[in-house]
Amino acid sequence: MTRGRFVTLEGGEGAGKSTQAHLLAEALRARGIEVLLTREPGGTPGAEAIRGLLLDPAMSWEAPAEALLFAAARADHVAQAIRPALEAGKWVVCDRFLDSSRAYQGGAGGLSDEDIVTLHRIGSGGLLPDLTLLVEIPASEAAGRLAMRDGGESDRIGGRDAAYHAKVAAGFARLAEAEPSRFVRIAGEGTKEQTHARIMQALAQLIEVAP
Amino acid sequence: MTRGRFVTLEGGEGAGKSTQAHLLAEALRARGIEVLLTREPGGTPGAEAIRGLLLDPAMSWEAPAEALLFAAARADHVAQAIRPALEAGKWVVCDRFLDSSRAYQGGAGGLSDEDIVTLHRIGSGGLLPDLTLLVEIPASEAAGRLAMRDGGESDRIGGRDAAYHAKVAAGFARLAEAEPSRFVRIAGEGTKEQTHARIMQALAQLIEVAP
Repeated sequence: MTRGRFVTLEGGEGAGKSTQAHLLAEALRARGIEVLLTREPGGTPGAEAIRGLLLDPAMSWEAPAEALLFAAARADHVAQAIRPALEAGKWVVCDRFLDSSRAYQGGAGGLSDEDIVTLHRIGSGGLLPDLTLLVEIPASEAAGRLAMRDGGESDRIGGRDAAYHAKVAAGFARLAEAEPSRFVRIAGEGTKEQTHARIMQALAQLIEVAP
Repeated sequence: MTRGRFVTLEGGEGAGKSTQAHLLAEALRARGIEVLLTREPGGTPGAEAIRGLLLDPAMSWEAPAEALLFAAARADHVAQAIRPALEAGKWVVCDRFLDSSRAYQGGAGGLSDEDIVTLHRIGSGGLLPDLTLLVEIPASEAAGRLAMRDGGESDRIGGRDAAYHAKVAAGFARLAEAEPSRFVRIAGEGTKEQTHARIMQALAQLIEVAP
């Protein structure tokens, strides 16, 4: 059986990644492709338990411990969900993956990019997506969308300040520039249908050559 | 203020490390030394929460995720308890530390020793103890002592088979041989008082030059 394709969605808070991940999974299923739709941190019982620790506002993780927890959650997710799905020929659509760690803990969080990539090699054998969709919106629009969520409340990560989120966005942009063959930058402005159409266009080639 | 001393106790299950850590902390306090007595995995609220995930029999962590979780717990423990205590001039007596990860996840668990040491550099700045006491007992005695605990019940790590524990013991011995200036091997046979006396003898030089 042919190995499935691994597609990740990346970007800052409020860019619409989760919505787009759902729309993408639906569109692939409508084409008869079996899809595992998942997200990070989380996606397996072990990784969801780690997610609970990471997002707990009562905890005060410093950057190195946080990076190790994300890598541990990812290792469990890859070993127990993503790799088995790919080996069974399914496509995997994942809302956030390694590049979020590189942008959040690496670029903006004080760890070197090299160390984040090393943690991924040790934890997950360095598995990389076939395609990474970087969904980008202007900072002002992201702020407006985030304010709409849960009456403006946010979790430990989302609740950080504007300068932090700007650094994260710049970090994602640098990653996309450094790996143009893996990344496609998607404009996230406008309606969700417009963004979805851009994503399906970016995926056309990958779908065409799929088994 | 002079930095405190950092002493770890290592060894397989049933060697008497926890008992000896308590006796050592008492003996140091009797000499007027301020002591933080702690243990791994655990020692801070974050690390204790990770310990709960690691020891949960319902979870099935593979070796890389397990190693990352231990490193994350250690990073929190070092940042939020061990380093602050040492900087305040206290001694730290810690029941298990890095060498347990090297012996359990590295030697016996399928990760390379180099990777375990890399995780410690990323997570905890590579902090090493001033002195590591390796408490060793014959495998037959360890088995007898473990059978006495909780009617023979054991947790996820302790419950593994004899071959696994023999590999762990061999891993500890190799570490001690490779770093003779940091390790002292302590015979753990006989009464707890006899073992404690051996430990105080091993510590004599460190106590003498202490502030």
